[in-house]
Amino acid sequence: MNFPKLIQDLIDDFAALPGIGNKSAERLVFYLLKNNHKINLNKFAKNLEQINQQIKICPICGNYTLGRQCGICSDQHRNQSLICVVAEPQDVYYINETHAFNGLYHILGGNLSPAENITPNKLNIKSLLTRLQDKKIKEVILALNPTVEGESTILYLNKTIKEKYPHITVTRLSRGLPMGGDLEYADEITLSSAIKNRNKI
Amino acid sequence: MNFPKLIQDLIDDFAALPGIGNKSAERLVFYLLKNNHKINLNKFAKNLEQINQQIKICPICGNYTLGRQCGICSDQHRNQSLICVVAEPQDVYYINETHAFNGLYHILGGNLSPAENITPNKLNIKSLLTRLQDKKIKEVILALNPTVEGESTILYLNKTIKEKYPHITVTRLSRGLPMGGDLEYADEITLSSAIKNRNKI
Repeated sequence: MNFPKLIQDLIDDFAALPGIGNKSAERLVFYLLKNNHKINLNKFAKNLEQINQQIKICPICGNYTLGRQCGICSDQHRNQSLICVVAEPQDVYYINETHAFNGLYHILGGNLSPAENITPNKLNIKSLLTRLQDKKIKEVILALNPTVEGESTILYLNKTIKEKYPHITVTRLSRGLPMGGDLEYADEITLSSAIKNRNKI
Repeated sequence: MNFPKLIQDLIDDFAALPGIGNKSAERLVFYLLKNNHKINLNKFAKNLEQINQQIKICPICGNYTLGRQCGICSDQHRNQSLICVVAEPQDVYYINETHAFNGLYHILGGNLSPAENITPNKLNIKSLLTRLQDKKIKEVILALNPTVEGESTILYLNKTIKEKYPHITVTRLSRGLPMGGDLEYADEITLSSAIKNRNKI
């Protein structure tokens, strides 16, 4: 005997999510069933449905938006000469929370990865190059992860942008010790970057 | 700037589930957004809504059911003289999958726990005692976890049942080495139980 079909269907839905195995999915569904007085399942369901129907992709930067354009692209108070290139939409929110950047964004939708067959034409690179035709743009910040995929995307974009728009400055996030980090556990690349890019105090 | 409200609401819904923190919830929601061509969010939403509306509690055993009575309670081919008492509805499915038991079930809805203020009247114990009035019932198997809470529930139920229904046999699941287990790592209680309850081969 298996779980009733309705329960099994919901277990399968949860188990399709990353990092949630079958056992965890079972635990989640039975938790929902047991706590349906505490958790508003109808609201949860409605939120899932609405997110599917209402969230659109901003045609300019590729971020998620409820309107036609996202709030950042339509905000004229932001610095229009800076574009920060990120891999995923959530990176926009993480960077925005630092309050250290007030320019525009461009979301690639991932990093280049030959292993996963993610080639340049699978990312929003063409739309980025089109945006850079705008003479207002002075600098592109490549805010990608310092991983193998992120580094190759940085190399590729740096080359492509410099070839087409030599007047645009291309920068990347600095490497160094993270706050609360420890010299002892820092890898060689991080530590050598931290020394080379040392700051005057 | 925070996430758009709709996204934040769904993140909060996921973060309310056990074992899912805020960061994991963010990851899940952005995964859903990115993969909404692969994952049927409307079906997921519908399953959540339906589970809330259609799943009822069986008035006899306390299991989840789509009909008035659960499939096990209404199945006359099962052994009506045996009741297996479990803490949670999912335990029914785990035990059923072993095909080692063909009797009826009774779901307590948890274990006794003074620390969490779970007293006997918060569990489905009254309905169990009412069921035991049926002269057909010969044995009650207390299939509870061998934890502090499970053990105290076993002690309490054993005492209560024996006082009221001395003709009913009360049993518990055997303790011993789990399949693939190792003598070296077995705790003392498990090992001493395994020796006391050794089986002839």
